[in-house]
Amino acid sequence: MDLINILIWGAAGAATLYGIVLSALILRLPTGDEKMREIATAIQQGAAAYLIRQYVVVGIVALVISSLIYQAIGFNSALGFLIGAISSALAGLIGMSIAVRANIRCAEAAKKGLSSAFDVAYKGGAVTGFLVVGLALAAVYGFYQYTGDIKALISLGFGGSLISVFARLGGGIYTKGADVGTDMVGKVEAGIPEDDPRNPGVIADLVGDNVGDDAGMAADVFETYVVTIIAAILLGQLIFPVSLNVVNFPLSLMAVAVFASIIGSMFVKLTDKKIMRALYQGLIVTTILSAGLFYVVTNYLMGDNGVYSTMNLFFATLIGLLVTAGMMIITEYYTGSKFNPVKLLAAASKTGHGTNVIAGLALSMQATFAPIILISAATLISYSLAGLFGIALAAVSMLSLTGIVVAIDAFGPITDNAGGIAEMAGLPAKVRNVTDPLDAVGNTTKAVTKGYAIASAGLAALVLFSAYSQELGSNVVFALSDPKVIVGLFIGGALPYLFASLAMEAVGKAGAAVVEEVRRQFKKIKGIMEGTAKPDYGRCVSIVTASAQKNMLLPAIIPVAAPIIVGLTLGPLALGGMLVGTIVTGLFVAISMTTGGAAWDNAKKYIEAGNFGGKGSFAHQAAVTGDTVGDPYKDTAGPAINPMIKVANIVALLLVSFLR
Amino acid sequence: MDLINILIWGAAGAATLYGIVLSALILRLPTGDEKMREIATAIQQGAAAYLIRQYVVVGIVALVISSLIYQAIGFNSALGFLIGAISSALAGLIGMSIAVRANIRCAEAAKKGLSSAFDVAYKGGAVTGFLVVGLALAAVYGFYQYTGDIKALISLGFGGSLISVFARLGGGIYTKGADVGTDMVGKVEAGIPEDDPRNPGVIADLVGDNVGDDAGMAADVFETYVVTIIAAILLGQLIFPVSLNVVNFPLSLMAVAVFASIIGSMFVKLTDKKIMRALYQGLIVTTILSAGLFYVVTNYLMGDNGVYSTMNLFFATLIGLLVTAGMMIITEYYTGSKFNPVKLLAAASKTGHGTNVIAGLALSMQATFAPIILISAATLISYSLAGLFGIALAAVSMLSLTGIVVAIDAFGPITDNAGGIAEMAGLPAKVRNVTDPLDAVGNTTKAVTKGYAIASAGLAALVLFSAYSQELGSNVVFALSDPKVIVGLFIGGALPYLFASLAMEAVGKAGAAVVEEVRRQFKKIKGIMEGTAKPDYGRCVSIVTASAQKNMLLPAIIPVAAPIIVGLTLGPLALGGMLVGTIVTGLFVAISMTTGGAAWDNAKKYIEAGNFGGKGSFAHQAAVTGDTVGDPYKDTAGPAINPMIKVANIVALLLVSFLR
Repeated sequence: MDLINILIWGAAGAATLYGIVLSALILRLPTGDEKMREIATAIQQGAAAYLIRQYVVVGIVALVISSLIYQAIGFNSALGFLIGAISSALAGLIGMSIAVRANIRCAEAAKKGLSSAFDVAYKGGAVTGFLVVGLALAAVYGFYQYTGDIKALISLGFGGSLISVFARLGGGIYTKGADVGTDMVGKVEAGIPEDDPRNPGVIADLVGDNVGDDAGMAADVFETYVVTIIAAILLGQLIFPVSLNVVNFPLSLMAVAVFASIIGSMFVKLTDKKIMRALYQGLIVTTILSAGLFYVVTNYLMGDNGVYSTMNLFFATLIGLLVTAGMMIITEYYTGSKFNPVKLLAAASKTGHGTNVIAGLALSMQATFAPIILISAATLISYSLAGLFGIALAAVSMLSLTGIVVAIDAFGPITDNAGGIAEMAGLPAKVRNVTDPLDAVGNTTKAVTKGYAIASAGLAALVLFSAYSQELGSNVVFALSDPKVIVGLFIGGALPYLFASLAMEAVGKAGAAVVEEVRRQFKKIKGIMEGTAKPDYGRCVSIVTASAQKNMLLPAIIPVAAPIIVGLTLGPLALGGMLVGTIVTGLFVAISMTTGGAAWDNAKKYIEAGNFGGKGSFAHQAAVTGDTVGDPYKDTAGPAINPMIKVANIVALLLVSFLR
Repeated sequence: MDLINILIWGAAGAATLYGIVLSALILRLPTGDEKMREIATAIQQGAAAYLIRQYVVVGIVALVISSLIYQAIGFNSALGFLIGAISSALAGLIGMSIAVRANIRCAEAAKKGLSSAFDVAYKGGAVTGFLVVGLALAAVYGFYQYTGDIKALISLGFGGSLISVFARLGGGIYTKGADVGTDMVGKVEAGIPEDDPRNPGVIADLVGDNVGDDAGMAADVFETYVVTIIAAILLGQLIFPVSLNVVNFPLSLMAVAVFASIIGSMFVKLTDKKIMRALYQGLIVTTILSAGLFYVVTNYLMGDNGVYSTMNLFFATLIGLLVTAGMMIITEYYTGSKFNPVKLLAAASKTGHGTNVIAGLALSMQATFAPIILISAATLISYSLAGLFGIALAAVSMLSLTGIVVAIDAFGPITDNAGGIAEMAGLPAKVRNVTDPLDAVGNTTKAVTKGYAIASAGLAALVLFSAYSQELGSNVVFALSDPKVIVGLFIGGALPYLFASLAMEAVGKAGAAVVEEVRRQFKKIKGIMEGTAKPDYGRCVSIVTASAQKNMLLPAIIPVAAPIIVGLTLGPLALGGMLVGTIVTGLFVAISMTTGGAAWDNAKKYIEAGNFGGKGSFAHQAAVTGDTVGDPYKDTAGPAINPMIKVANIVALLLVSFLR
């Protein structure tokens, strides 16, 4: 085994081991009283029931597609697809399994205070982050070592992305259908607090946080990570001399960043109630360490590549780290309650539901501008440093921080769930006072991760598009003067709109089903409101599960079917335009939705913190409406666009040989 | 004078004469009682005050820009800019002047029944439509005959488009600021009906219908009409031999369609309460007549052009007519209360504000798909018939129907205002029962015109982009593999988002100012609610006027500044990408906003008609929120994107000589 082999397998092993150690630490913690355990068990069962059903549905889809791939391309590609799909599903399972166990322990720890609750939640998030990274490295590198087939890696990426679309959609429809439905009857009509045990939808709502924000997110990040590595490998193989092992370079960058992330992760400690600072501390350490290690790796592996200077390649990796920092600052500005946008949104609630929604939509749209300028600058600079490979490197270096970024993200839903359990189990108010501020910070970090994921997806998708373009042959030019390319741009631009629209509709349907059921139970089951009768939580859980499964299929087909239809009817030029069109509008739709949704949520929290009349005021009612609108934006449609863009690009890559 | 000269001047004259005759017929009609006249006078004064202030602001901007053009390009171009700007302003003035006089006469006529009210409103709309067309033909042809300078026509288009951006923004912010603000305090907080005379904002609201839906729309349509002709001329001049007079062909197509429209207009008669059918009757007659005349004109003028076959050119004009029909059918489907989308949106209101808004946003996004496929098909087919000139012809033939399309559109705001006057003057309920259904149909026709305008704008902008591309030289290729082009696409894609966001924010600000003022008056002026004291309407009018003027400037600068900045810093390739990016996302943002807004409005009307609990029900409150959100969508941000796209493209065309 050579050094690189040891490095990559070592990183995969270290990430996995670190994840396992952290889980063991969490599982040892106390789980509170009987009542809490009863609730946590209900959440676990609901989440497991959902995942089993989800995996049956997508399992059938995956088997059909892998046999099609086997027929059309060959064994390696079919195997790659299955490995990608299974690993992505496994990533979701890991994310969820630890989250549904960390939630109750976090609630129990919250009795002791902010820093112990934070510690549990952060460790829970870190388990997901590191296990996902370990799994991704092992899947890509192991598959490549076993088959030696770079082309088949594309199918591995396809498997990961496709399952991730399903996970994001299914989980997103579930979580927001349950949330919107439960809140609208509970908070708005019946006037009972959030997570009140009298609300029949409350368990479904708590399950939703896990299947959406944890399982969905983990699958999504797994996919982004894997596809970015593969895109860099594909491009590297086209650019560099055959003598150079282009598989090793991106994987080694990812590997060293794993070690940096583990060290950085140990710097996350809450000492003075500044939650955001504690999180960023770890991230900053990781970033600095990674930058240093990138320099070493680049010199060691690319010292004599004969194409680009080592310094240029190294600078391109730095661009990725800078974009990550930039996206975080921008997203925090637009979604944090300390800054003007959220404050103005909260102020717009004073004049009613309508002005809140108008202000929120305006904020959503405006929040796309700075990220687009940042992505544009990164594209131009990294291209000037090392051509298309520079863009690929920037994307790889962004994604190399995945372990710690996911840890920062996934702690949020755990605290959200902990707060729910505390409320339902009737724990003292001080517990909720610990979990609430953690949850608010979690909202922002969730938005930050989504912004980070979509920015990296934009870069990775550009690399996939250029791989598609190079595979077609260098004589093919996608010129904007060609109406086929323009029409491709139009059709591609339409896909995120159609996809997001169907996803939002699905949430509306699932939400409406929950509303009807909750209303029915309030009417039929006497004594619910007085707390003398228990609502039928299970029925709401199974209603949302069924609705999510049914309604995720149609939008999920879009990114698979569209490239095939456009490619076979309008040809490769229109398909190329379509890919770019999907990237362009996809970025806008996704960024506006994820940022806007988080801003709505935090504007509501800002009012609940006592501003503009506080809880129960007219402004608060309007802010609850905005939050409801933002829910499918930020947790269903918006984040699902990220894998959707990549599925479209990967399908096009797989089609190339049939189009030439 | 040759035949073509007679034809074009004859058409301009006929359109103007027909408009003048119709106005004379309207002005002869009775104006009702003292109370009605008092209200109508207040509306007229408010509208005039707004327009004067608007023209002072844009007059200064226009003078500055025309002197810059004089310095940079020359006298003819500066003159062209001023003629375009003044004509566009005049178009707005014409539209508004007739609307503020037809409204009261329509209210009076409504006492006699539906068909007489319809007759007045339709004639009022037709005055705007035909005078705008007459003015546009005269401006373009007269200026060309006087200067013989085709390049300077670009500046004429620039003047028209720029003023139109201001008119759409200023009028749109005014109308929706007043509407949102007035409704939120009046309908939602105080629980008094729409247009109730006790509401201090009601005159501002009625003024708004005129300055937005009439003045703004007229300037916008003028601009679209003029720019489309100019784009076709520019392209024709590049494609056809010098011997052919390329100025005459598009102008002659426009001219014959004027005669067809006048005849078609006479077929608009309401006999059996089917308002939509009465309107479409006229449109269908016009379309068939135009198609026949197009055949004659094409054969006469392009018989021997040596480039494209006459039949191909003729078929390209038919594509334009088919797109018009297609856009109307699609928009009516998504916004008409007879069809599923609006019914489902109304049903989503049953579960609350949040689900109404989610369903409306989903509908908005989905409503972009069919139009984009239609525009894509039109682009490909017309290109295959006659290259880029085929696309230009399709756009020209779409716009040739302007006279009658505007008539169908502009009747809506007149009936809306008539209803307001009836309510305020305390006319019997039967009057309102006549104007309300007319208003509902007007909502759909307004959305239809906007869809039509934006589809034609998409085609026209593509033609402008190719003119830009050809002016740069045939060796310049805008390849998607070039990161500058991609970054251009990203930045261009961001512009409609930023523009729309600022426009929505402006409405929010204007609306909030009205809310504060109306609340203040309700509190301070004793006896308003009992009807014993009169509210101070004038203060609301001047607050909205000032707010609209102040807040329209920033978004209006975007399409002028962006091409200059991108062109001078990133160069012509990035600028080309930017133009296409603006067209792509611009189409989606504009179509989703105009269609979604109309659907929200009609879903509210559907509930008010007695469905899902009718007026005052919980569903109705939610639908009012949706309508409020839809207001700046459909009447401010959405329609303003149409001229905005073209301004960006024209500025780029003017810049070409500095970039080569």
